[in-house]
Amino acid sequence: MLIEDRLKELKEKINAKVPAGINVSEVEFEGPELVIYTDDPKKFADEADLIKVLARDLRKRIVVRPNVLEDPEIAATKIKAVVSEGAGITDMFFDPDTGEVLIEAEKPGVVIGKNGTTLRDITKEIGWTPKVVRTPPIESSTVKQTRQFLRAVKDERKAFLRSIGRRIHRDLTSKDKWVRVTTLGCCREVGRAAFLLSTPESKILIDCGDKPGSSDGFPYLYVPEIFPLKSLDAVVLTHAHLDHCALVPMLYKYGFEGPVYSTPATRDLAVMLQLDYLDVVANEVNQVPYSSKEVQEYIKRSITLNYGSVTDIAPDIKLTYHNAGHILGSAIAHFHIGDGQYNIAFTGDFNYGKTRLFGPATSQFPRLEAVFMESTYGGSEDNQPSKNDAESRLYEIVNETINRGGKIIIPAFAVGRSQEVMLALEEGMRLEKIPKVKVYLDGMIKEATAIHTTYPEYLNPDLRKQIFQEGMNPFLSECFVQVDSPKIREEVIGSDPCIIITTSGMLNGGPVMEYLYALAPYEKNTLIFVGYQADGTIGRRIQKGWKEVPMGRRETIVLNLQIETVDGFSGHSDRRQLMAYVNHLNPRPEKIFTIHGDEKNTIDLASSIYKRFRIETHSPKNLETYRML
Amino acid sequence: MLIEDRLKELKEKINAKVPAGINVSEVEFEGPELVIYTDDPKKFADEADLIKVLARDLRKRIVVRPNVLEDPEIAATKIKAVVSEGAGITDMFFDPDTGEVLIEAEKPGVVIGKNGTTLRDITKEIGWTPKVVRTPPIESSTVKQTRQFLRAVKDERKAFLRSIGRRIHRDLTSKDKWVRVTTLGCCREVGRAAFLLSTPESKILIDCGDKPGSSDGFPYLYVPEIFPLKSLDAVVLTHAHLDHCALVPMLYKYGFEGPVYSTPATRDLAVMLQLDYLDVVANEVNQVPYSSKEVQEYIKRSITLNYGSVTDIAPDIKLTYHNAGHILGSAIAHFHIGDGQYNIAFTGDFNYGKTRLFGPATSQFPRLEAVFMESTYGGSEDNQPSKNDAESRLYEIVNETINRGGKIIIPAFAVGRSQEVMLALEEGMRLEKIPKVKVYLDGMIKEATAIHTTYPEYLNPDLRKQIFQEGMNPFLSECFVQVDSPKIREEVIGSDPCIIITTSGMLNGGPVMEYLYALAPYEKNTLIFVGYQADGTIGRRIQKGWKEVPMGRRETIVLNLQIETVDGFSGHSDRRQLMAYVNHLNPRPEKIFTIHGDEKNTIDLASSIYKRFRIETHSPKNLETYRML
Ligand SMILES: [Zn+2]
Ligand SMILES: [Zn+2]
Ligand SMILES: [Zn+2]
Ligand SMILES: [Zn+2]
Ligand SMILES: [Zn+2]
Repeated sequence: MLIEDRLKELKEKINAKVPAGINVSEVEFEGPELVIYTDDPKKFADEADLIKVLARDLRKRIVVRPNVLEDPEIAATKIKAVVSEGAGITDMFFDPDTGEVLIEAEKPGVVIGKNGTTLRDITKEIGWTPKVVRTPPIESSTVKQTRQFLRAVKDERKAFLRSIGRRIHRDLTSKDKWVRVTTLGCCREVGRAAFLLSTPESKILIDCGDKPGSSDGFPYLYVPEIFPLKSLDAVVLTHAHLDHCALVPMLYKYGFEGPVYSTPATRDLAVMLQLDYLDVVANEVNQVPYSSKEVQEYIKRSITLNYGSVTDIAPDIKLTYHNAGHILGSAIAHFHIGDGQYNIAFTGDFNYGKTRLFGPATSQFPRLEAVFMESTYGGSEDNQPSKNDAESRLYEIVNETINRGGKIIIPAFAVGRSQEVMLALEEGMRLEKIPKVKVYLDGMIKEATAIHTTYPEYLNPDLRKQIFQEGMNPFLSECFVQVDSPKIREEVIGSDPCIIITTSGMLNGGPVMEYLYALAPYEKNTLIFVGYQADGTIGRRIQKGWKEVPMGRRETIVLNLQIETVDGFSGHSDRRQLMAYVNHLNPRPEKIFTIHGDEKNTIDLASSIYKRFRIETHSPKNLETYRML
Repeated sequence: MLIEDRLKELKEKINAKVPAGINVSEVEFEGPELVIYTDDPKKFADEADLIKVLARDLRKRIVVRPNVLEDPEIAATKIKAVVSEGAGITDMFFDPDTGEVLIEAEKPGVVIGKNGTTLRDITKEIGWTPKVVRTPPIESSTVKQTRQFLRAVKDERKAFLRSIGRRIHRDLTSKDKWVRVTTLGCCREVGRAAFLLSTPESKILIDCGDKPGSSDGFPYLYVPEIFPLKSLDAVVLTHAHLDHCALVPMLYKYGFEGPVYSTPATRDLAVMLQLDYLDVVANEVNQVPYSSKEVQEYIKRSITLNYGSVTDIAPDIKLTYHNAGHILGSAIAHFHIGDGQYNIAFTGDFNYGKTRLFGPATSQFPRLEAVFMESTYGGSEDNQPSKNDAESRLYEIVNETINRGGKIIIPAFAVGRSQEVMLALEEGMRLEKIPKVKVYLDGMIKEATAIHTTYPEYLNPDLRKQIFQEGMNPFLSECFVQVDSPKIREEVIGSDPCIIITTSGMLNGGPVMEYLYALAPYEKNTLIFVGYQADGTIGRRIQKGWKEVPMGRRETIVLNLQIETVDGFSGHSDRRQLMAYVNHLNPRPEKIFTIHGDEKNTIDLASSIYKRFRIETHSPKNLETYRML
């Protein structure tokens, strides 16, 4: 059926269900959603269950939008006129995709008004649907700039969403029914995650990362299964770590034109890390695989989805994200193919243990035939200490070092372990398990933390409760001090005993090198590794016992400081948790593919799962295609 | 390196090795060969080992050709003038590809002359290199027309071979090294054979057949691994059965432009069967997947190779054919990839037993890492009676039927079992095991038999000896009578007791239906099945016990005649032979893939091979890709 006829039919069905007196002027696909344009958005909103009923009957995600949206600047002035100054409005974000205006205020209650009266007044005045959130306690420049950019390209983006909407809802053409997965990277190795899910109708790329510290660091994007990239329907990201998303902007350079799906938090973290990646690569090899122009292209074409929202992303594929417990916004991508014919979950990186920041990864799915599962700690020996043991050990080392007047350097990735360690240190000081010293944050850690405070809904319930109900946001503790100039860095180095959390996590560059250079000669100081150190990195060499570290043009650093490794802060499931996860998967899948681990670990995990659960397992190689259905 | 520079370099190397006084005017790639053009072809020929040495040192197949080839018509007149009339020259075939003229004569010895004097005279007169063969005792119109057609398009073909030659010898471009096989059909099923062998440099399609009696009868040629077909370097055929070659001409309709490799016998049988396939399909569904124009396209772009000739078919792939023992010209295709990195054999259909016609399939290879192996009779119960037992049973039934005055109908494929049964009957009569009655051949069987007599070098040594040294060609026995008109068919039906071998082999159409209609009502007659009857065919239904057969617009046929099945004439290895073949494979491969068999059989064979030989096995599904290296 022609798409115009389909939209006409949908409009007729909607009109038949909408109460008399409510006008439906237009319906249109925009990205994965069906948008109903009306002159009466308020009346629509008053019919409590109407949208829910329409969504269920039409099997579409429904959005209602007023025909005319007030110009954002005028609307902003009107909002400020309605809301009392005491609300402390800090920002307003008009999202033309949704017809919503996000009002950030220090006192959200004042914007809402008694029983929502002020909010209703706003709706009447401006047509936009107001949503109110508490002003994030730390401002993220990434989030701000991304929102500004999206506002600037809103017309272009609207045209893009319409064309994607029509592409998603195109007719099925093939009489064949099959589902295949092609492995383009990340098999029997960690890094360059890239999996192609294909049917006779559609092609979806899951993740597109790099392989840090490797000469052949790109996924096999040149093979005919995926090239030309124009033939891809969509890219689906599991999370923002660079081994999963670094090369997404590059896809636009080589012909990709479609959308990139992710959670909102993943989008903002990915943009932050990609821009940093460009700086790092430019310094190292002078030849960058893409530029910030392609990062903008990515932002323009990103479509964000929250956990649990079932979304059409191709004529025969629905995507639902579920919590993966790994980092902020990390998700298990669940694909429902055809009319329930086949369901595949890609776990991305996931943690089946509860952490200070996140709940454990979801193991319950409506349907499930196959799972592609990470295996970083899939070896039979790869069990990690508990979080409690890890934190006790961390406290012990902090106490010893501070007591002898030393300083502590903790190298960490900007996203993930940094925040986990921050929360452990904050609680340690609050409960007087360690002395109250300054915790300096250098590198991208502050910005990453700001993005965490922008998306509190992704944190686990305990932490959310602590922040919102008890008003105690641990990230705002006065122990944390941002280092944002070389001058402050000098002061930190010359100051009293303290803790420094800084990038890069594996000591391959970044501000950590400055600290090491200044503090390594002194035995009283301590370097604590809290994360995995990959082969070939300076971090790994130091762990192995190297006592001297070459430092570019400078002389070598002689390491007299104490070297410690504290395991147990990992964002990955350890072996025990991986096996427990498979045990708890519901429903039990027919097939499990072990990926994202070295050869030994993926094979070990696959054979252990088969032996214990009698589920068919594979440890695929790169460049293979598996027939799922 | 530019191809022109490469040819220049090769020319210099050749000049350095050629004795003074021999002129090398040009070297050029033509198809897989390096052609040396010279004014002195005779001098070249006089240096006994020169070409061998050049081939070894340059690692190329070398052909020497005179700069100027006499016009074929003039040359033919000159040959006739030189050779005495008593030689009985029946045809001459000038092959501009090779600069050879094939002289067919009833008395080849006369053309050659005492100590080859006449042959040398010819060479001096015409420049073409003469080869003499005995006139095939039965003329094949397919062979004749194919040769005529090739003569007519010789300029076009020469240009094609030059461009393919340059394509084969292009530079390698990728730093990656991998080898993959994608299954496009014939997995867990019999039919639509199609396998894609790919490397970063090249793409080779092995076979391209249909699946008779099926609604989804085409290989998955639309998937991106192989589409667009223009990206294919070559098609490699194992043998001429339609489940392996029916759709080759169609490839040219959808953009393929490259060569199709096969043995000479396979090419001619394939053309015969494809043209017949077009007639049958046109009758059945009125919509043919290609026309005779595309069959011509195939002939024009075919390149024939004999067993054992190691041939470059892509910059990083060499092909060698080995005897498969299945039908005339059937071959195991052995691929040698890169600098000996990887070796894969595709058995096609093969018979590891000796038959009246062919020797057993080759099990010895210079190198071998993986095998794709047919599994038609791969089930643990799928053992067949010996040829001797089968023939005894056949003789028994023939005797019984003839003795009671009945006629015998043997439905058979034109190629394969027909000739095997013919030889058994001929010997039976010669050794007086059965009465001397007429054996009528109807359908394409005569033409197929003619092609057999055109290529005696593909028959086994015993049969060759019988034909050439003992002068006793069993195909020429006077017991065989060709039925080539409806009038003769009527006469056969009304005649004395006799044997009728006729197509189609599974009773889905063809002249066999006429015979059945006329002879089925009488109990004294017998229908003998000697080949596999696929599900859904009338043959299968009759085997199952049906006593009435619907016959299109006509009334049904009531079957009162005797129904017999004689197993053991199969051209396939049975289960025991398949296992013995794996046992004798030398060297022992690392991996075996079981294909061309139903799901049960491929899985059973794969697991039995693994259990007995501890070789890694897979029973792939269609649309999978396996990483070999
Ligand atoms: Zn990760
Ligand atoms: Zn990862
Ligand atoms: Zn497997
Ligand atoms: Zn065959
Ligand atoms: Zn076959």
